Amino acid sequence: MLSNFKVVLVETSHPGNIGAVARAMKNMGMDQLRLVTPKFFPHADATARASGADDVLRSAQVYESLVEAIKDCQIVLGASARDRTISWPSVTARECAEKWANDASRENIALVFGRENSGLKNHELDLCHYLLRIPCNPAYSSLNLAAAVQVVCYELYVTSGQEHVSSIGDRGEDPLATAEQMEAFYQHLQQTMADIGFLHPERSKSIMRRLRRLFNRTQLDTKELDILRGILRFSQNHNLK
Amino acid sequence: MLSNFKVVLVETSHPGNIGAVARAMKNMGMDQLRLVTPKFFPHADATARASGADDVLRSAQVYESLVEAIKDCQIVLGASARDRTISWPSVTARECAEKWANDASRENIALVFGRENSGLKNHELDLCHYLLRIPCNPAYSSLNLAAAVQVVCYELYVTSGQEHVSSIGDRGEDPLATAEQMEAFYQHLQQTMADIGFLHPERSKSIMRRLRRLFNRTQLDTKELDILRGILRFSQNHNLK
Repeated sequence: MLSNFKVVLVETSHPGNIGAVARAMKNMGMDQLRLVTPKFFPHADATARASGADDVLRSAQVYESLVEAIKDCQIVLGASARDRTISWPSVTARECAEKWANDASRENIALVFGRENSGLKNHELDLCHYLLRIPCNPAYSSLNLAAAVQVVCYELYVTSGQEHVSSIGDRGEDPLATAEQMEAFYQHLQQTMADIGFLHPERSKSIMRRLRRLFNRTQLDTKELDILRGILRFSQNHNLK
Repeated sequence: MLSNFKVVLVETSHPGNIGAVARAMKNMGMDQLRLVTPKFFPHADATARASGADDVLRSAQVYESLVEAIKDCQIVLGASARDRTISWPSVTARECAEKWANDASRENIALVFGRENSGLKNHELDLCHYLLRIPCNPAYSSLNLAAAVQVVCYELYVTSGQEHVSSIGDRGEDPLATAEQMEAFYQHLQQTMADIGFLHPERSKSIMRRLRRLFNRTQLDTKELDILRGILRFSQNHNLK
């Protein structure tokens, strides 16, 4: 149950918070923890704050980059308290649970949480299908990292224990593309646009961002991805003539 | 908003947790913190973990007993992960929010959280109208104190921001009895039962517990309380003849 949800912590500064996250997860029946270049890990503070959830710590996987950590995930949510310069699809913790915390859900879902002081960077949010928001006091929105994870895991737990409307059948049979496949697609897309003379250097960053948002929101499956990449290849080859 | 909710921490051992609680509360627009004989307070660890919510710490009131801390509260909820020997009315964090986190709610509501290691004692649970439960993993239910407070405050915040069905009118106009008034009533009740020869020493504790449960569940208002106390007085006096 809920094993398809991967809690991903990016560059956590305080090892105690990692332990507190492990404890928060285990309380809600979750144990899939991934750490991207944690500042100190393993660490006695992490073990101390895990308070009996040290099995979650022991099975935590450590990665060199966020891209690596989410490679096998079809849906990536990035916790963020701030708005983006361009609007990005977002869900609240409760909406996230309602959409995906049910038996019909077959995808790997990454719940990405950023640094204690600065959250996630723009290029990290670019990798996300949705921003993940926890409603809180607009005058003071400074949730502790483990507290934020606790709220999200709690919503998943509470919702997964309930009846759900089955969503099997409202999409085709093909599996959704993983983040790794999407990344390769975006590289291919960007290269193709350069090849065909479409990308202007000053605008390329914002254009790519909007394209990422578009295709992320589409939630491509592997069959659709193959089609798009075929189109890109033909575009590239067409211009070599 | 939500100022009628009082977070009451009983004999907290780790001052860091008090700070983390303050932070959790402020994130959800709450600032009414009460501490019953905290082990160390004020303390640098509390201030550190409050992380900007130290105004909540500064305004926290410290009490010598739980009875004192809840005197002015009409509704008292006690967080508990375990079942009681006799069943006690209970609500989940979400049900609590649905019942009371709305504009129509005029009562003071105490949310009582116990010690990190042992929760609340039986005599403290006796003071509660409801047990407050947070659904979690039956195989590992060991929420950190501040994490538990975070989840409850989050539910209150999310619900209070929503539309509600007004409950004005489904009770009379009289205010609900405070915990102090109920306590006086129970003392009076116990004394009366002794006076009239009803109470047997071996059974009195469990009988009083059941009566407390009964009248707490009734949620007496002051007018009803006056009537009951009048009956008790007349019973006492009747036996003096």
